[in-house]
Amino acid sequence: MGFYLTVLGSGASMPTGHRSCSGQVVNVEGFKILIDAGEGVQNQIRRSHVKMQSIGTILISHLHGDHFFGLPGLISSMHLCGRTEPLDIYAPKGLDEVIDAIFRVSDTQLNFQLTIHTLAPETPQTIFENSKCRITSFPIYHSIETYGFVIAEQPKNSLSLKRDVCKKYTLANDDLLRVKQGADLTLPDGTVVPNSQLTQPPKPIRRYAYCCDTTYNENLIPAIKGVDLLCFDCTFDSKNTELALSKGHGTTVQAATLAKQAEVSQLLLTHFSARFKDITPLLDEAQAIFPNTIAATDLAVIDLQNLAQSND
Amino acid sequence: MGFYLTVLGSGASMPTGHRSCSGQVVNVEGFKILIDAGEGVQNQIRRSHVKMQSIGTILISHLHGDHFFGLPGLISSMHLCGRTEPLDIYAPKGLDEVIDAIFRVSDTQLNFQLTIHTLAPETPQTIFENSKCRITSFPIYHSIETYGFVIAEQPKNSLSLKRDVCKKYTLANDDLLRVKQGADLTLPDGTVVPNSQLTQPPKPIRRYAYCCDTTYNENLIPAIKGVDLLCFDCTFDSKNTELALSKGHGTTVQAATLAKQAEVSQLLLTHFSARFKDITPLLDEAQAIFPNTIAATDLAVIDLQNLAQSND
Repeated sequence: MGFYLTVLGSGASMPTGHRSCSGQVVNVEGFKILIDAGEGVQNQIRRSHVKMQSIGTILISHLHGDHFFGLPGLISSMHLCGRTEPLDIYAPKGLDEVIDAIFRVSDTQLNFQLTIHTLAPETPQTIFENSKCRITSFPIYHSIETYGFVIAEQPKNSLSLKRDVCKKYTLANDDLLRVKQGADLTLPDGTVVPNSQLTQPPKPIRRYAYCCDTTYNENLIPAIKGVDLLCFDCTFDSKNTELALSKGHGTTVQAATLAKQAEVSQLLLTHFSARFKDITPLLDEAQAIFPNTIAATDLAVIDLQNLAQSND
Repeated sequence: MGFYLTVLGSGASMPTGHRSCSGQVVNVEGFKILIDAGEGVQNQIRRSHVKMQSIGTILISHLHGDHFFGLPGLISSMHLCGRTEPLDIYAPKGLDEVIDAIFRVSDTQLNFQLTIHTLAPETPQTIFENSKCRITSFPIYHSIETYGFVIAEQPKNSLSLKRDVCKKYTLANDDLLRVKQGADLTLPDGTVVPNSQLTQPPKPIRRYAYCCDTTYNENLIPAIKGVDLLCFDCTFDSKNTELALSKGHGTTVQAATLAKQAEVSQLLLTHFSARFKDITPLLDEAQAIFPNTIAATDLAVIDLQNLAQSND
C-alpha cells in the first residue's frame, strides 16, 4: 500500500484553468488523510484515483477560503452518497461555527457522525494516531492562525528478513515469525544460525511534512527536521520576497533554504500564485539551493517509497 | 445587447464530470443577474463569456448546497480581483448568517459593500428594479423555503420605426425622435404623413421565469403565465414521479404540463439527476406534451430575442 500523496490542488487564492485551490490526499498504508479542501476539492477527488468515501480524516491548515471552501460540498456529497462511517476533522477555531451554520440553514441532518476538533496553538503535539500513522500539528507563520502537519508512519516492530540468506534454509511460518521477532534459528542438525545473519533492522519510518500557508521561519526546523518529504508554501519567486512576507507566504529561495537547514530528503513546492503561468523559473531558483526539489501539479502522485529507500 | 441567459450549471445535488451545480447568468440589455451559485460557479463563469466583475446582482433560490456553495468563493474572488462596486444578494433567511461567519473566521474585510436582502414568502413581489429590468420573487414548492424568480425587461416607451417606409423620406435625427414619440411627419411640401404609416407599436416586453427546485403545482401558473422562457426543475423522468414528489422536485411530464397550462413560449429543462447520462429520453417525454422544450447544458447560451419575435 505504501506511503504516497495525491496533489488535488496546487494553486493560491483562486482556482484557475491550470490549478485548483489547496488540497492533498496522503495515503499511509491505505489510510487516507485529506489535507485542506479548497473549492472544487470533490471534483478533484473524482478526477483522481482516490475514492471519496475512503477518506479517513481531514486536516484543515487554516480558514482562508482557498483552503476550506470545498469542505461543505465534500461533506454534503459524502452524505448524499450514503456515508455512514464517522468523520473527524481537525481545524483551527471557527470551522465548527461555519459548518454548523451551513447545515442548519439547509436543514440537513448528516447520515454520519461529523466531529470537528479544534487545533490548539501549542508546540508540536499529536492530534491523531492509529495503527498506520501518527499526525502532529504545530503553529506556522501566516496572516491568520495556521497549522503545519507532520504525518509519520508507525514504527515497524518486526525485523526485516534477508531473503537471500533465508532462502538457504527451509523455514516454516512459525520459524519465520520467531526470526522476525529476533530469535536465532536452530536447524534440524542442531546448528544455530544467529539472528543477525538472517535479518536486518526495520526500515526507518517515513515522515511527510505540510507547511502551507506560511512565511520562512527557522522556528519551523525542529518540527520538520529530517522528514522524507517537505511540502512548503511557494506562492512567490525571490523577486517578490517583500510581498511574500507582507502576505504571510513563502518564496522559492526561502522554501529551499529551509529544506536545506532542516535536512529533509525532498522538497515539494506548492501554492503557486496565478501570476506564474510557467513555474520552471521558480523550480530553477529552488533547485539552485536545494537540488532535490519538485513542483506540485494538480493530480500528481508522489511516492515516499523511493525517498525512504534512499535514506537506508 | 438583447436578453439572453448563460447556463453555468445544469446538474442536481452534486457536480459531475458533465454538469456543474445550479447557476445561470441572465443578461438584460447588458445588466447581468446571477441566479444560484453552486460549488465551482466561479470556474464556470471563467469558462463562459461572462466577466465575473460585471455581475450586477445575485439571486439565490434556496439554501441547499448545490445552489449556494459556490457563493463564498465567488465573493472572495471578486474581492481579491479588486471589486469596489457594491453587490446585492437576494436570498432566503439564513444566508447572511453563513456569509458573516465565513468571512469573520477568515478575518476578511471585503473591498466592496455586500448587502444580503432576505426574501419574504409572500405572493409575487418586486425585489429589484432598474432601467433595464424588474425582478419579482415568489414562493415555490421544495423541501425547504425556496423562491422562483421572474425577470422582465422594462417596457420600451418609444414606438418602433417601419424602416422600409421611413427610408422613402429624408428624416433628420430630430424628425426620427419626434416620430418615435408618436408625432406625424410633415414633409417640406407640407404633406403630412400620419405616424401610423411610419411606426409600429413597441415589441412586447420579454420575461424569463426560473423555478428550481420545485414540485409541480398549479399555484405557480399566475406568476409565470405567458413568459417567453420558463426554466423548470426536471430532476427526474416520469418513471420517478413519486420520488420527485418526496424530494420536492419536478419531472419531465410535470414541467411540460405546467409550461402548457401557463402558455409560455418555450420551456427549458434543468437540474438533471446524475443518474441520467443521456437526457434525450427526458427531452422526448417533455416534447411529447410541450414541443417547444429544450434541455439545459452547461455553458449553453439561450437568446430570448427570437422567442420574443415569435410572439409579435
